[in-house]
Amino acid sequence: MMKVGRAADAPPFLVMDVIAAANARAASLPPGAPGIIRMEVGQPGTGAPLGAREAAIRALQAGEPMGYTEAFGLRTLRARIARHYRDHYGVEVAETRIAVTVGASGAFPLAFLAAFDPGDRVAMAAPFYPPYANILTALGMQPVLLPCDASTRFQPTLAMLEKMDPRPEGLIVASPCNPAGTMLAPAELQAIARWCHANGVRLISDEIYHGLTWGTVAESTAASFSGSAVVVNSFSKYWSMTGWRIGWLVLPEDLVRPVECLAQNMFISAPHVAQVAAEAAMDCTEELEANKAAYARSRAALLAGLPKAGFTDIAAADGAFYLWCDVGHLTNDSAAFCAEMLEHAGIAATTGLDFDRGRGNRFLRFSYCGTEADMAAAPARLAGWLRR
Amino acid sequence: MMKVGRAADAPPFLVMDVIAAANARAASLPPGAPGIIRMEVGQPGTGAPLGAREAAIRALQAGEPMGYTEAFGLRTLRARIARHYRDHYGVEVAETRIAVTVGASGAFPLAFLAAFDPGDRVAMAAPFYPPYANILTALGMQPVLLPCDASTRFQPTLAMLEKMDPRPEGLIVASPCNPAGTMLAPAELQAIARWCHANGVRLISDEIYHGLTWGTVAESTAASFSGSAVVVNSFSKYWSMTGWRIGWLVLPEDLVRPVECLAQNMFISAPHVAQVAAEAAMDCTEELEANKAAYARSRAALLAGLPKAGFTDIAAADGAFYLWCDVGHLTNDSAAFCAEMLEHAGIAATTGLDFDRGRGNRFLRFSYCGTEADMAAAPARLAGWLRR
Repeated sequence: MMKVGRAADAPPFLVMDVIAAANARAASLPPGAPGIIRMEVGQPGTGAPLGAREAAIRALQAGEPMGYTEAFGLRTLRARIARHYRDHYGVEVAETRIAVTVGASGAFPLAFLAAFDPGDRVAMAAPFYPPYANILTALGMQPVLLPCDASTRFQPTLAMLEKMDPRPEGLIVASPCNPAGTMLAPAELQAIARWCHANGVRLISDEIYHGLTWGTVAESTAASFSGSAVVVNSFSKYWSMTGWRIGWLVLPEDLVRPVECLAQNMFISAPHVAQVAAEAAMDCTEELEANKAAYARSRAALLAGLPKAGFTDIAAADGAFYLWCDVGHLTNDSAAFCAEMLEHAGIAATTGLDFDRGRGNRFLRFSYCGTEADMAAAPARLAGWLRR
Repeated sequence: MMKVGRAADAPPFLVMDVIAAANARAASLPPGAPGIIRMEVGQPGTGAPLGAREAAIRALQAGEPMGYTEAFGLRTLRARIARHYRDHYGVEVAETRIAVTVGASGAFPLAFLAAFDPGDRVAMAAPFYPPYANILTALGMQPVLLPCDASTRFQPTLAMLEKMDPRPEGLIVASPCNPAGTMLAPAELQAIARWCHANGVRLISDEIYHGLTWGTVAESTAASFSGSAVVVNSFSKYWSMTGWRIGWLVLPEDLVRPVECLAQNMFISAPHVAQVAAEAAMDCTEELEANKAAYARSRAALLAGLPKAGFTDIAAADGAFYLWCDVGHLTNDSAAFCAEMLEHAGIAATTGLDFDRGRGNRFLRFSYCGTEADMAAAPARLAGWLRR
C-alpha cells in the first residue's frame, strides 16, 4: 500500500464543485428553457480588456520567443505596478519589492513559506477565502479563525487580536473581502498593521478586490502603513484577467530575497504572455471603469430587489462583487437550499459552508459579476421561487 | 524583529544568477565585439511553434474570455495528452489521470504534497535538478542524495536503492536527466519502477526531456511500468514553450482527487491561453522535429569539437540538450572557471555546483539549445582561450 501525504486531505475549494453542478444543470435544460443565472463564480464574465488582448496578439505576431522572464517578472511590468502605487494610493513602493506571481494563488505559498514555519498559527476572520486555510494546512501551518459577524463588518478588530493568547505568528486580512464583500476602514487597517508590526505578527493583506469598491469605505493598502506587511494583489478581478494567472506581491525588504529564491525554484517565472497583457491592461482604464459601472448597477439592482424577494439580511456591500446573505430565517442547511435554488429557480449561488465551516450553514454568497441582464432578472426569479 | 520562515533559507537556483551575469557581460561589450555565446540556459531559443502561436492569436482575436479552466485543465488538452501516450509510448492512460499544471515547476509541489509528509525522505541521484531538493526542503521534506558517476550514467541503480537503510518514502528519477543528459535504459526504469511499487516507495518520474533523445538509449515512460508512479512532463523543452508555463502530471489513481483539491486551492488552474497553445503545439511535429534536428547537429559538433578544445571527459549525451563535463583536470573551482570563461572566452556555462554541492566544483554544464551557429563556433573559442 503506497502512502499518501497528510496534505492529500486538503478539502476541495467547494465553489469549483458548485460550478460543475451549475454546468451540469445548464446542460440538462430543455431547448428554449430560461438559462441558469450564474451567481456562484467570482470571475468577471468580461475577459481581459481589449488593449491587453491586443498587446498579447502583437507580441505573438512579432514572434517574440516568450521565454522565461526573471523570477520576479518583466522589469517594465514591475515598474508599472510600482507606478500604480504612486498614482492610486500615493505611496512610494520600490519596484525591487514587486514580485510578479502566477496569480494571487501562486503568491500565497511563496508568502506563507517565506514568512512562517510548520506549526505557526495564522489568524484570519471567518468567513474567509477557503484557500487561505487550505494552503496553510497543506504546508503544515495552523489557520486560527476569528469568528466575525455584521457587528464588525465581518472583519477582524484590534480588540480581537489583542485578546489572542498565544499571539499568532501571522494575520491575513482582506479588504474588500471574499465572501462578505465588506471592508476595513483605512484607520482600522492602519491600526491593525501597526499592531502587527509592533508585535512581531506578519500581516498578509489580500488586496485583490481593490478597484472594485463602492464608495462606502475608502480603499487603502497595507503598503502605506507597514514596512513588514506582505501585500497580495492580482489582475484577475478589477483587470478582469482570471485565466491569465497573473498577480503580484509587494514584499517587505526582509522577504525579497527569500521569496525570490523560492520563486526561482517553485515557479521559475509567471507566464510571459500574461505579463505582457497585464502591463497593457493597466492602461485600459476606460474599459475597466465601464465594467465597474456595470457591477455597480447590478449591485444596486440586487440591493433593491433581494430584500423584497426574501433575502433581507445582507452584509454591508462595500466592495468586490459579492453579497453575503444570512438565510437563517429560510434554512438551516444552505447547501441544500442552494441546490434547490439551482434546481427550481435556475440560479446558482455558493453555500456559506465553503467559507465558514462552523456557521456557513445559514449563509450563502451571491456573486454579481455576471451579465447585467441576468443580475437584473435574478430578484424576480428568487421571489417567485420563495413564494411557492 | 519580524520572524521569517525556515524555507526562507531556500538556496537560489544558481543558473538564474549565471543568466544575470551573462546578461551583464553582454551589455558591457564594446560595439562590434563578438557577442556572448549562451550555453548556460536550459531554454530553447526557438519559441513556441508557429501553430501554437497561431492558435493563441486566433483565440484572443475571437474574444474568448480566457477565464479559469477546471483545475486539471481543458478537457480537450487532457484528451490530447492521453492520445500522446497511446501514439508515442503505446500505453493507455485515462485522461482523468492527466492534470495540466503551471509548468513542471507547478507540478512538483502538488506531487510532493500529495505523496509525502514533512520529514519524509526522498531519494535522487546527484547531480540533480536543483529545484527537486529546494522544493522538498521548503516543504519540510528531506532530499537524500545518491552520488552517481559515469559508471552508472549518472543514474541511480536498483542496487543503490536496495542498500538504502532506512528505505526512503520517495524516489525521483529523470531520464534524460538535467544536468548530465544521460538516460536510464527501459529495462532499468522498469526494474526501478517495480521495486518502488513493491516496496511502498513513491516514484516521481521527471520526463520533461522526452522527445529530445539521440537514439543511444530508447525512451520509455514510468506510466508503462507502474500504477503508483507519478509522471511529470512539460511543454517547455521538446515543445519549446518555456515562458508559457504549461506542463502536466500523469497521476496514479490514489492521488487524482488529492492533487485536484490541492490544485484548486494552490493554482485554481493553469494559464488558459497557454493551454490553447499547448494543445495546438502537439500537432506541430514538422517544426519541432526541425528544432530537434538542429540540436542533434549542435550536439554532434560539440562532441567532435569540445574534446579537441580540452573538454575530454563528457557524460554520455543520451538526451536533453546538455553536456556534463568533468573539468577536474582544468580546475578545482568550476564557479571561478566559468566566470573566467565568460570573461575571456565570451561563453556562459553553468558551474556544476548548482547541481551537486558536494562534487560540482569539478564539473560544468554546457547547454546546446542555443543557435546552431553559436554552438558550432564554441569549440574554437574555448580552444583559443584554454591555449592561452
